[in-house]
Amino acid sequence: MTERIYTACVLIIGNEILSGRTEDVNLNHIALEVGKQGVRVREARVIPDVEDVIVDAVNAARANFDYVFTTGGIGPTHDDITADCVAKAFGVPLVINEEIARRIRARPTAPEVMESRMRMARIPAGATLIDNITGGPQGFKKGNVYVMAGIPSVMRAMLSTVRLQGGALVRSRSVTAYLGESEVATGLTAIQNRYPNIDLGSYPFMREDRYGTTLVMRGTDPAQLEAMLAEVKQLIVNAGETPHDVE
Amino acid sequence: MTERIYTACVLIIGNEILSGRTEDVNLNHIALEVGKQGVRVREARVIPDVEDVIVDAVNAARANFDYVFTTGGIGPTHDDITADCVAKAFGVPLVINEEIARRIRARPTAPEVMESRMRMARIPAGATLIDNITGGPQGFKKGNVYVMAGIPSVMRAMLSTVRLQGGALVRSRSVTAYLGESEVATGLTAIQNRYPNIDLGSYPFMREDRYGTTLVMRGTDPAQLEAMLAEVKQLIVNAGETPHDVE
Repeated sequence: MTERIYTACVLIIGNEILSGRTEDVNLNHIALEVGKQGVRVREARVIPDVEDVIVDAVNAARANFDYVFTTGGIGPTHDDITADCVAKAFGVPLVINEEIARRIRARPTAPEVMESRMRMARIPAGATLIDNITGGPQGFKKGNVYVMAGIPSVMRAMLSTVRLQGGALVRSRSVTAYLGESEVATGLTAIQNRYPNIDLGSYPFMREDRYGTTLVMRGTDPAQLEAMLAEVKQLIVNAGETPHDVE
Repeated sequence: MTERIYTACVLIIGNEILSGRTEDVNLNHIALEVGKQGVRVREARVIPDVEDVIVDAVNAARANFDYVFTTGGIGPTHDDITADCVAKAFGVPLVINEEIARRIRARPTAPEVMESRMRMARIPAGATLIDNITGGPQGFKKGNVYVMAGIPSVMRAMLSTVRLQGGALVRSRSVTAYLGESEVATGLTAIQNRYPNIDLGSYPFMREDRYGTTLVMRGTDPAQLEAMLAEVKQLIVNAGETPHDVE
């Protein structure tokens, strides 16, 4: 029996991440949150506010992954072109969504400002809304593409309302050793080969001038995870070290 | 006269970023550092430790950008497959680099551990070294692909030795207003249209429950940047607000 794996791609849209001005924090949150629903992020792309690039990225991602999550580019200014690009990717027109428009009109303002805000009511034909529990304009879902804000607090508010069909939950166990990776590399290869369904990663670090590595096991079968963790801990002991921070 | 623009793609290789376990900090550093050398990061991809995915990503990136920077996957364990993948992407064999091998052999250890460490001496035929001033095994450059460690401190040590041919430096000016983006959207569009060579971005935020937006101008011509900044500041004043944090 092969278990169905549900995959996702995250598209982070915004020049400011690529220029180094802003550090992205949305990928990490999305990965953790969709993971809790049994969906695995398999790729992320950071792309600029350029129409052709966004359209191509949306089309590639929606064909290759079960879910696509975009962040950024759905505000009221000239550089907010995500909705336009998603519509173009799907070959449908943009339409005014009355539910978003009502929410925007509920906050009176000057006509010129209102006109800019109403840009946020435009969604691709056939899209449905992703609620925005902060009270601002909603995001939307078209096909398997979930379009969300770039501001982290607003993105999180939107994602918290999204329910996905996912597969078995990926669980993880981990253990840290203050050893060079090479000191356990051969043993890790042998253990990985014995547990083909569990992904064993070795993540080296330097902390207060000490090298170490965190060994992370990820998979869906709790019993296999426990057995593998026991083997990895024993490997660390055999290398003369103590297993730390078992989680 | 069209000025030559030098572009880069960053490939962040590692399951741990996609699982949400680790937050990437390398993209931001690379974007800022290569920017200082007149090279613009135009895309970043976070991809898993899967051979086909890495090979395809390397080949797409090296064809489409002037420079490619990879981080991660060059350690001694079974999940470190970046060197293998870059060799495969270029259609060349892996060879033992004697300079890296010497550095590895200089630290005596058990034969089995040494064998694992020697994996790090394998680089694609024809590649040259990127020095690692921490004293560990070096990274390498094959064609326009720069292969670096994933540990941030080691990646930074490697990148600090890399000298690139770049174009004109991209400079930026910015100003913050505690206004909704929509209140300046129309004016921003008009200003952007008057300065086609300067990229004007509007980056909304929420800070201590106040919405605001930072307006960022990026381009190579200092005089145009100053003139545009003055117009944006005036736009903020006209909207009844005060320009903050001018940089």
